[in-house]
Amino acid sequence: MSHHVEAMLDTYPKDLGGIDKQVLAACIAACFECAQTCTACADACLAEDMVAELTNCIRINLDCADVCETTARVLSRRTGYDANTARAILEACRTACEACADECERHAEMHEHCRVCAEACRRCELSCANLLATLN
Amino acid sequence: MSHHVEAMLDTYPKDLGGIDKQVLAACIAACFECAQTCTACADACLAEDMVAELTNCIRINLDCADVCETTARVLSRRTGYDANTARAILEACRTACEACADECERHAEMHEHCRVCAEACRRCELSCANLLATLN
Amino acid sequence: MSHHVEAMLDTYPKDLGGIDKQVLAACIAACFECAQTCTACADACLAEDMVAELTNCIRINLDCADVCETTARVLSRRTGYDANTARAILEACRTACEACADECERHAEMHEHCRVCAEACRRCELSCANLLATLN
Amino acid sequence: MSHHVEAMLDTYPKDLGGIDKQVLAACIAACFECAQTCTACADACLAEDMVAELTNCIRINLDCADVCETTARVLSRRTGYDANTARAILEACRTACEACADECERHAEMHEHCRVCAEACRRCELSCANLLATLN
Repeated sequence: MSHHVEAMLDTYPKDLGGIDKQVLAACIAACFECAQTCTACADACLAEDMVAELTNCIRINLDCADVCETTARVLSRRTGYDANTARAILEACRTACEACADECERHAEMHEHCRVCAEACRRCELSCANLLATLN
Repeated sequence: MSHHVEAMLDTYPKDLGGIDKQVLAACIAACFECAQTCTACADACLAEDMVAELTNCIRINLDCADVCETTARVLSRRTGYDANTARAILEACRTACEACADECERHAEMHEHCRVCAEACRRCELSCANLLATLN
Repeated sequence: MSHHVEAMLDTYPKDLGGIDKQVLAACIAACFECAQTCTACADACLAEDMVAELTNCIRINLDCADVCETTARVLSRRTGYDANTARAILEACRTACEACADECERHAEMHEHCRVCAEACRRCELSCANLLATLN
Repeated sequence: MSHHVEAMLDTYPKDLGGIDKQVLAACIAACFECAQTCTACADACLAEDMVAELTNCIRINLDCADVCETTARVLSRRTGYDANTARAILEACRTACEACADECERHAEMHEHCRVCAEACRRCELSCANLLATLN
């Protein structure tokens, strides 16, 4: 998906304001992929016979999906860029991804969806950290 | 992104209920890509000097992004599947994508972001129609 | 919340296009209230000891919350109004609310959150139907 | 809307974990009201003849609506509560509301929708700060 995101960044009619286009595109794509994966993982947890042991996992999956989607939207907007808002939502996204990865990793050996989801969360957590590093 | 979506569908612990996995994965991926593209196109329109002539385009871009994201989420959930809700949101998504593609195509020669966005909307419109055809 | 929504509609700088302002405001408010209630009901279901019997309820709650929020956003926008998109998302919202109310009503005697949620869904279903009737 | 939110909190089947119910309900309600107001303000800005001077306002309105909705959803979930994620999204919401209020206040004398929206953002900023104070 990073290719699609970068293609749209290339069409932006004004200057991107010194931001690293590839790091930005990678972060937006990672956020959308993590949001989809967390939405699917919450649903797969719901379908497990042992759902009662996965309720904390479902909850943080739902949070992480919401925070990732909002972060992807905020980052996709370049007009009237506000560095404080960008940094704060990236910090929230990194925090939610870390919490979700920690939780999913506990179930990774038993549930393949949690293993795949933990990886998506770690990639997104790292992408947010990478983008934050370029903003400071 | 379709690859990521399909990988998560493969981890779903129950039967997918006879749905065509590849058609479903393609539709979910097309919805997320269209949502990202519409969000970026609305912002690129805002950055144009002639923004006053693009306000209808911005509005339908915002609608289309919201409807596509919700459709992608509903389709990502397989537990307790309700065919009526799935069909209704797919119809709404197809309608929003068609309206957004029609509007963006009017500006496609002048604005590259509208040209790319119209293509993403047409792909998503077609993906929704393909999935709807398998549900009837 | 309807009061807040109507106050903002009063500030809209152009004509509202013949739409009934009170019916519109009631529908936007009902959508937001239903979205909040469904999000809370899904979480309350997760917290029940018998969560394994509530997984279908959680799923339709999550769908209904997403569809209601998107509907509220689309309806909150008046610029470049597209009647086809408005009608299609209202139909999807009515369908999701009906499905969620049907499911929650099955658990209403046992779970107070499902009883309250079913009422919010019925109110929203009716508000969507009322608004649709004025659009035709 | 705070009344609706509190009614649902009362139905939660487990302990709320020592959180102040009224402060929490007020914050969730303020987030939803701010999200609706910002969505409507962005659209009203689009409808102004001088839209070209309001593009920064539209952008921060869109960000603020997204962040407020996600914050309201995260706060509406009590199961598997993660204090780090809650604090981080509340900080992001406070930041986005402050930025949006600052921008809208610049146009408050000329545009009634910006005046009303700035007030909603300040209320939400304060509600987030109040809730954060109880979490520390």
